[in-house]
Amino acid sequence: MAGTNSELELIAEGPAIILVEPQLGENIGMVARAMANFGLAELRLVKPRDGWPNDKAKAAASKADHVIDATKVYETLEEAIEDLNFVYATTARERYGFKPVRSPVTATETLRQKFKAGEKTGVLFGRERWGLTNEEVALADEIVTFPVNPAFASLNIAQAVLLMSYEWMKSGMEDLSHTLFEPVEQKQATKEQLFGLFDQLEEALDARGYFRPEGKKPRMVENLRAVLSRRALTSQEISVLRGVVGTFDKYSRQNPRGHEGVAEQGEFPADDSDNG
Amino acid sequence: MAGTNSELELIAEGPAIILVEPQLGENIGMVARAMANFGLAELRLVKPRDGWPNDKAKAAASKADHVIDATKVYETLEEAIEDLNFVYATTARERYGFKPVRSPVTATETLRQKFKAGEKTGVLFGRERWGLTNEEVALADEIVTFPVNPAFASLNIAQAVLLMSYEWMKSGMEDLSHTLFEPVEQKQATKEQLFGLFDQLEEALDARGYFRPEGKKPRMVENLRAVLSRRALTSQEISVLRGVVGTFDKYSRQNPRGHEGVAEQGEFPADDSDNG
Repeated sequence: MAGTNSELELIAEGPAIILVEPQLGENIGMVARAMANFGLAELRLVKPRDGWPNDKAKAAASKADHVIDATKVYETLEEAIEDLNFVYATTARERYGFKPVRSPVTATETLRQKFKAGEKTGVLFGRERWGLTNEEVALADEIVTFPVNPAFASLNIAQAVLLMSYEWMKSGMEDLSHTLFEPVEQKQATKEQLFGLFDQLEEALDARGYFRPEGKKPRMVENLRAVLSRRALTSQEISVLRGVVGTFDKYSRQNPRGHEGVAEQGEFPADDSDNG
Repeated sequence: MAGTNSELELIAEGPAIILVEPQLGENIGMVARAMANFGLAELRLVKPRDGWPNDKAKAAASKADHVIDATKVYETLEEAIEDLNFVYATTARERYGFKPVRSPVTATETLRQKFKAGEKTGVLFGRERWGLTNEEVALADEIVTFPVNPAFASLNIAQAVLLMSYEWMKSGMEDLSHTLFEPVEQKQATKEQLFGLFDQLEEALDARGYFRPEGKKPRMVENLRAVLSRRALTSQEISVLRGVVGTFDKYSRQNPRGHEGVAEQGEFPADDSDNG
């Protein structure tokens, strides 16, 4: 899925991602990679089990070096968040407590508002095996949880960070249907071009007795035109189709398969199964 | 992040996920895990490099056994999609072609509509290193691409599947602010309860000379009440706070730190730094 354009400016802003006692370097690296894809750059680690820096993290980060190199390490969660104004805790389990619980969409809208207002924010992610303690959740302002299948809720930390990072990116987009690239500009053909195709095709078919019996011809023409009109054909596509019709019209089959080309025999039956 | 409730019915519906020539079993397993989290269950593989079944895939699937066990393997992409009505191809690179390009939000809305209409759909994901060929993209109806950081676009297939699966789940939700669990029901206290706290606190402070000079008292009371009113306190929280005030009011410090408790000396200064 690589499509990096290194001439473009790297987006690097938004909430800090704080991993509490992460164990596997691979997970830390995948977190960095997830963040970089969606323009987040500030990674903080509280007591990573295998120390820091970590070669496995670097390898798994897939060149998100700007995130890995700027990663900060803390002894306690309190130190890791002391400069922040607003913090979310992620959790998949219901907690006994009084904190508001938000969906990722709502949470990233809040984070985006606070970012615009100049506040510093962060999102906490717990240990691989058992997440955050209740005491750690208590340090956050609000809880964010993911809309997973209740009967199979098993996101790892890199997946959870990916989803939050992705929603962060989307929270900054005015139009959620926006895509990074558009298909080649395709202008629909003019009606004159479309009618040219109709004329060519209908003349060539008529010359072969396609429109039979005569009384059915208007209905058959109508159906044929409906098929071609529904497609919003471009000029280029009409050229392709006219070439196809022209080829059938002008040339007979060069390698008949055991019998002579039907067109030569004038026996091509009108297929009006769809035209009745 | 594990929060599976195995008593709940497993969601298993929606588009098929089709991986074209996946190489690493770990990635196939992570794809299955991602799908299961968001209620997708139909995984199809076109020529997996290491054959099938694959122990590494099973291990990485983290108990998404219902997805792994039902995975089907095909020799060609054409065979893998021949029973489907509508297919998306995922790609991070701009392609020369005439296909519509959609964001994940738009694409999953379309997939949801087709699902409701009884159509069978699928989403194609390419090889780890270089994605889908142009010929493979050409077999799809439309293209879906992710809103990544243009200067760092590097999603692996499991991440890409995770995002599509997540958007699929969201496309079925009426309210994107919905969360799986809610905080414990918290009813805001009545004003009578709040005024009780005001009275207790102000009386206890007044008895200690907090409101000095006398002329500033109305403004200081107003500011104090503003602090407490902004919090939408619950009955329970008001009980906690009244207990705190009562403790300060009734008991003197039992272990003075080197000097006598200030309250006993009656020298507690009015801190009106925030009350000016």
